[in-house]
Amino acid sequence: MSTIRDINRYAILKVLGVLLIIEGLFMLLSLLPSAWYDRQCLSNMVLFEPTHDFLPLLISGVIALSIGSSLYIFNRNLDQNSIGKREGYIIVSLSWVAISIFGALPFMLSGVTTNYTDAFFETMSGFTTTGASIFTDIEALPKGILFWRALTQWIGGMGIIVLSLAVLPILGIGGMQLFVAEVPGVTPDKLTPRITQTAKNLWVIYVAMTLFCTAFLIFGGLSIYDALCHSFTTLSTGGFGTKNDSVAGFSPYLQMVLIVFMYLAGINFSLHFFALRRRFKYIISNEELKNYTYIILISTAIITASLLILKNVAFDKALIDSLFQVVSIITTTGFVSADYLTWPTYSWLIIFLLMFIGGCAGSTGGGIKVVRIVLLFRNSKLELKRLIHPQALIPVRLNGKSIPQHIIFNVLAFFLIYIVIFATGSLAVSMMGLDFESSIGAVAASLGNIGPGIGSVGPVLNYGLIPDAGKWLLSFLMLLGRLELFTVLILFSAAFWNK
Amino acid sequence: MSTIRDINRYAILKVLGVLLIIEGLFMLLSLLPSAWYDRQCLSNMVLFEPTHDFLPLLISGVIALSIGSSLYIFNRNLDQNSIGKREGYIIVSLSWVAISIFGALPFMLSGVTTNYTDAFFETMSGFTTTGASIFTDIEALPKGILFWRALTQWIGGMGIIVLSLAVLPILGIGGMQLFVAEVPGVTPDKLTPRITQTAKNLWVIYVAMTLFCTAFLIFGGLSIYDALCHSFTTLSTGGFGTKNDSVAGFSPYLQMVLIVFMYLAGINFSLHFFALRRRFKYIISNEELKNYTYIILISTAIITASLLILKNVAFDKALIDSLFQVVSIITTTGFVSADYLTWPTYSWLIIFLLMFIGGCAGSTGGGIKVVRIVLLFRNSKLELKRLIHPQALIPVRLNGKSIPQHIIFNVLAFFLIYIVIFATGSLAVSMMGLDFESSIGAVAASLGNIGPGIGSVGPVLNYGLIPDAGKWLLSFLMLLGRLELFTVLILFSAAFWNK
Repeated sequence: MSTIRDINRYAILKVLGVLLIIEGLFMLLSLLPSAWYDRQCLSNMVLFEPTHDFLPLLISGVIALSIGSSLYIFNRNLDQNSIGKREGYIIVSLSWVAISIFGALPFMLSGVTTNYTDAFFETMSGFTTTGASIFTDIEALPKGILFWRALTQWIGGMGIIVLSLAVLPILGIGGMQLFVAEVPGVTPDKLTPRITQTAKNLWVIYVAMTLFCTAFLIFGGLSIYDALCHSFTTLSTGGFGTKNDSVAGFSPYLQMVLIVFMYLAGINFSLHFFALRRRFKYIISNEELKNYTYIILISTAIITASLLILKNVAFDKALIDSLFQVVSIITTTGFVSADYLTWPTYSWLIIFLLMFIGGCAGSTGGGIKVVRIVLLFRNSKLELKRLIHPQALIPVRLNGKSIPQHIIFNVLAFFLIYIVIFATGSLAVSMMGLDFESSIGAVAASLGNIGPGIGSVGPVLNYGLIPDAGKWLLSFLMLLGRLELFTVLILFSAAFWNK
Repeated sequence: MSTIRDINRYAILKVLGVLLIIEGLFMLLSLLPSAWYDRQCLSNMVLFEPTHDFLPLLISGVIALSIGSSLYIFNRNLDQNSIGKREGYIIVSLSWVAISIFGALPFMLSGVTTNYTDAFFETMSGFTTTGASIFTDIEALPKGILFWRALTQWIGGMGIIVLSLAVLPILGIGGMQLFVAEVPGVTPDKLTPRITQTAKNLWVIYVAMTLFCTAFLIFGGLSIYDALCHSFTTLSTGGFGTKNDSVAGFSPYLQMVLIVFMYLAGINFSLHFFALRRRFKYIISNEELKNYTYIILISTAIITASLLILKNVAFDKALIDSLFQVVSIITTTGFVSADYLTWPTYSWLIIFLLMFIGGCAGSTGGGIKVVRIVLLFRNSKLELKRLIHPQALIPVRLNGKSIPQHIIFNVLAFFLIYIVIFATGSLAVSMMGLDFESSIGAVAASLGNIGPGIGSVGPVLNYGLIPDAGKWLLSFLMLLGRLELFTVLILFSAAFWNK
């Protein structure tokens, strides 16, 4: 019988320490744009006015670095054992919470908000790559703060790729377990070596794509600063921008660049890895990618037609608006190029349904994930076959392989829990005074890590007016959705603590 | 290889013939109230004006009887083989469609509607015990027609009890398969003897409860006619009434009577059977009944509190309104004692969520069914346990027994398909011009066999303004929901026809 006392808490604190050190370094990185845009004031030593963010970012970075280093150093020698599955679960959930607690500091210290709930919500929304914001006038925020805000999403995206492709499969959770059913040479008790190697490969791809995106955006006329901020939040499918109207004011070229990179960010990153190795046959035959693309094309076609016929929009605008919003929502990025709530009801209902589908497993996108949807549909068809032939064992197939029954079971349970959390979450939010559409919109958009929802949290509005209790609840839902439900829920199960 | 040619179509037509004969007899039964209330006109031979329904009912009855008898007689001698599983599936779906096609005749012939779509919708809404109506001024309808309308629900309720407790378990579908895992002495090829015995027992209970309900209602001051009509539609959890304001004008006593009988009708009828045999221990320990009751009590408590605090409603009115609507909706009856859409958002959101839960398996209620919800929640909790102990086989338990994994699998697939049909159905209905809330309300209320939904098909409105295509779609959804999805869907599967 191992109990709560057996958990290697030194190892957990050590890892959290490392993460806080990394967070502190990224905060210090935000000093660059802050210093550049505030160079006049900096030279005059005007640092303490609310529009200045140099000192707040510096202080926040130093706090994160010192606490991180202390945690690392104090626990380094106490950690005698390796990290097991249970520690893994705890680290994953705690790390997102810990970096959000400290990541909120720059918002508080710079005075852009005086409510810690708002600051925490904005930061959790960043690290979970959701993109739901409490700010109305984004252009009034200091440049360093906006840079840090975009960076939280970029860091979150990095984190989620490693998590979904390297950590969760070993913990037995997540859509990617389908692809790495056997991970050679890895015992559950020694996670570290394998994770390190996978992480390195993926991050190289992630950084490279971010730089490419930045270059294309600069080529389209954006400043280096705006291009970087938007690349950070495109590749992470986060959706924080630097403009009040999101990307509605961008040129068609810039919007097309964002469409391409959002689409790429919504694809399983291991496919990008295979692309580098020129294994294109493998990529083209990938059934998740195929279905992801079909869903985008069909949704875009229906919405374009509705805008052409029912709203008399010009063809090119109808097409790019539809395609942009479909890709922005299914990848759970949440950039807004057009207010989809002004479209015909069934067009934005399609957008709303896409919020539940989400990107591919192993991408930076949220939601239920395309591969799960594909498996669920195939299993339903087979369930009819099973009723006709009750004696036969009829497995679900994907990419030419039979999927073990316990995985289908897990996917079905995932879908159920997702819907139940959506329903009860909506009920809880509506108890806080939100109307029906806003409640289901806020919960669907938080749980799916999208950002804009429907109703009063629609594409041209924000989360500022939701009561504090609602913001905490939605922050929790963002975390739940981001960490594929089970990772967080398992911590609330008695069986976890009394092994 | 058996193919479509091997299906015993003579047996199918013979059974349909019997059902049409029964339907014809019930139509003729409606001549009694028609003649009684129209006795003045009858004696003057004023029969062909639109408010008179004697002749239309007579003609409809004769048509159903003649076609039914012909089908029975012609196919009687041709039917050499027994009825198997495949014939069972076809008969179940076809019978609901066939009796709806003919059941619509009285509405057409009497001229209360001139649109066959409306007449069919109303009849399918009756036989599926849904209770969605296209009529605005119900009190203006002739008494015989209203009686027939109530009878369609009563017949539908009878049908569904036999179906869910005797037929579907043998076909391997439905919530009740949990209780009759082994049906002694029945081979899938010979369904008839067992069904006949079960049906007889259940119908005695059903008829007895209907008579009790009628007596209580008469005691409360209703006319025999109104009491009968309301008993028919209470025990069948149908919800068709005889008044324009449903049951809002009823006294608290009458509403309490309806609450009690709706509650009873939403319970598994095999428990009523056990009650007659005084096996009360078995009933009290039934976990579905327990959860059904808890859900009602908790929902009522929350809504009562909201009406007291936020709407300043008097306690007794708040309590009875809440309890009535909670019971009316969870049992999928759909009687309206108060317009729940005027309640606080979260109160009617609870009502909306209850539409998905529905009554107990083996009751006349629709929806997903309480037992499935219980199993789904238990399985989700266990899924977390399975992640912690991946090697262990952890079965879901109900009423002290382990539930086989293929049944949990089926229940999970049922939930998924239910939600997917709800989502795509809502999308389709919204394409016909309905707004968001009306679309999801109409689909949830049709699929769950409830009747009143939200939005423009809310409790004080009706389905009259929905376009014809929408009425056909909703009729199909009523059928799908009533026959537990798989029974109908299996007919669309290639594997069914090419065995």
